[in-house]
Amino acid sequence: MDAREPTLADLGEGAVLERIFPRLPISNLALLGPGDDAAILKAEDGRFVVTTDLMVCGPDFRTQWSTPFDLGWKAAASNLADVAAMGAVPTALVVAVAVPPDTAVSVLEGLADGLDAACRSLAPGCGVVGGDLSASDTFTIAVTAFGDLEGRAPVLRSGARVGQAVAVSGVLGEAARALRLLFSEAVDEAGEPDREKASGLRDRTRAQLAPKPPIQDGALAAIAGATAMLDLSDGLAKDAARVAKASGVAINFHGSALGEDVRLALAGGEDHSLLATFNEGTILPGGFRKVGEVIAGSGIFLDGEPYSEDGWDPYRDWSG
Amino acid sequence: MDAREPTLADLGEGAVLERIFPRLPISNLALLGPGDDAAILKAEDGRFVVTTDLMVCGPDFRTQWSTPFDLGWKAAASNLADVAAMGAVPTALVVAVAVPPDTAVSVLEGLADGLDAACRSLAPGCGVVGGDLSASDTFTIAVTAFGDLEGRAPVLRSGARVGQAVAVSGVLGEAARALRLLFSEAVDEAGEPDREKASGLRDRTRAQLAPKPPIQDGALAAIAGATAMLDLSDGLAKDAARVAKASGVAINFHGSALGEDVRLALAGGEDHSLLATFNEGTILPGGFRKVGEVIAGSGIFLDGEPYSEDGWDPYRDWSG
Repeated sequence: MDAREPTLADLGEGAVLERIFPRLPISNLALLGPGDDAAILKAEDGRFVVTTDLMVCGPDFRTQWSTPFDLGWKAAASNLADVAAMGAVPTALVVAVAVPPDTAVSVLEGLADGLDAACRSLAPGCGVVGGDLSASDTFTIAVTAFGDLEGRAPVLRSGARVGQAVAVSGVLGEAARALRLLFSEAVDEAGEPDREKASGLRDRTRAQLAPKPPIQDGALAAIAGATAMLDLSDGLAKDAARVAKASGVAINFHGSALGEDVRLALAGGEDHSLLATFNEGTILPGGFRKVGEVIAGSGIFLDGEPYSEDGWDPYRDWSG
Repeated sequence: MDAREPTLADLGEGAVLERIFPRLPISNLALLGPGDDAAILKAEDGRFVVTTDLMVCGPDFRTQWSTPFDLGWKAAASNLADVAAMGAVPTALVVAVAVPPDTAVSVLEGLADGLDAACRSLAPGCGVVGGDLSASDTFTIAVTAFGDLEGRAPVLRSGARVGQAVAVSGVLGEAARALRLLFSEAVDEAGEPDREKASGLRDRTRAQLAPKPPIQDGALAAIAGATAMLDLSDGLAKDAARVAKASGVAINFHGSALGEDVRLALAGGEDHSLLATFNEGTILPGGFRKVGEVIAGSGIFLDGEPYSEDGWDPYRDWSG
């Protein structure tokens, strides 16, 4: 970080917020945006969808690998995917950020630009309506996202029924592949994350650092009659097992539909793609393609054989 | 921390969440609670109020001074106060928590109990509808709170007009007095926070560790016609200056209405009391009492003399 750049400690919270606010995307549904004790949002059908997620430096990102823009983008994208997975249209975010006081203000500006770009690209009309800035030894981003069901019933995890098609929209295993690449090639001789090496891998690591989940396919799936849906954050097998358990069914995947590295597709987390089930014969909307079917029983199957789920647990898999 | 207690790393995220969920308060307005990609809340008048705040170990709390119950209580109370300051009734919270993996599960249980007790006591009917658990070197709590305006106009910071009464509900300076006590008497010889000494000061430090803001007075003030309102988080003078600036007026405080330590009442942060302005002659609702009046000009006055504001800035005042 360039020591001549102004830091948050130099400017103070108020002045920093004045520089950040104009960069943030505006929500079409905001009745009152940032600046008072709270924001006010429209909820036209009398309900709203809400989800929250933390991104923590260390387990969730490294500042040598992710630019501030990437962090803003990913914080937005991962939360927008949870809203989409309910069958809702994302309407707004609130964003709380904690950073060390010696952080350059440009880091927060980059973060705001990433939030803005992700909202514009993935969920036009969605904006940031509020936030908080704090000091911390650990760079932490907490996003809460809101969505509008537009009068529709939400698509839960519990609606999958035997005989239905299992479909996915978005990439499978790409985020995990990119992470593996970063851990093997974007580190120095001591194994520590290396900024310059990561920047040379930019094109092959975007799925991890700045993923593009198919946000608009969430509402499209709901309109097409999806019976269950969720966001793939912990890996296809682990997340599909959640749908299976909540629905009291099993899910059988077709290996031939999961790409070249079937194991990676099943185990890799953080793609933020959408998994949904549809009545057999439904014309699949948007980017959805069939990857399996709902069968009787419990758990996950691959080409008819039981498959042991795998995935990412933030406590067990934390590497410090 | 007792090493024999199970930690988050021992149990994993899923098992921990199963232990936490039953302890959390239920929201009267939840159409769908925790367990899916997102929660769904009713917003009966077609709008909702939303605010977010981070609490970070170090600048915002010390685990030697605050029990897990205190942390849950304060995280709820401080966010509920922001909702109340809009004139709204708090309806729900989402809570994201990041802790070191070796944290005992009982810490999260205590935090859940504190959230539950604060909601029951300060905002009955308000509950936790969702959350997130992450690993972090720095214990961090991110709360987003929601409120229902019940068809009323929100009470903004910008509505104060010359001639109106300035009133406060809740304590002034008590949280700062308690913090000062903790820093002077609840430290060991090296100046480090000391758990045992803090526990002996419990009765005199509650205003800091587990404040009781007058949450229900927010909606009462709105119903009584409050013209401006805000939550006192950074000190009476600094926060009143925000109302004055947003409204294009000045505020004159009466020293005789500010208790024995006028300077502490004006400068002390974190009381989460409510400051509101009312038309002269309004019968003040709930716990509100008059502390000054709105005058022409700009800035803050004490008994007619200009008063230089003071307060807490998380970046400038961070002590590491």
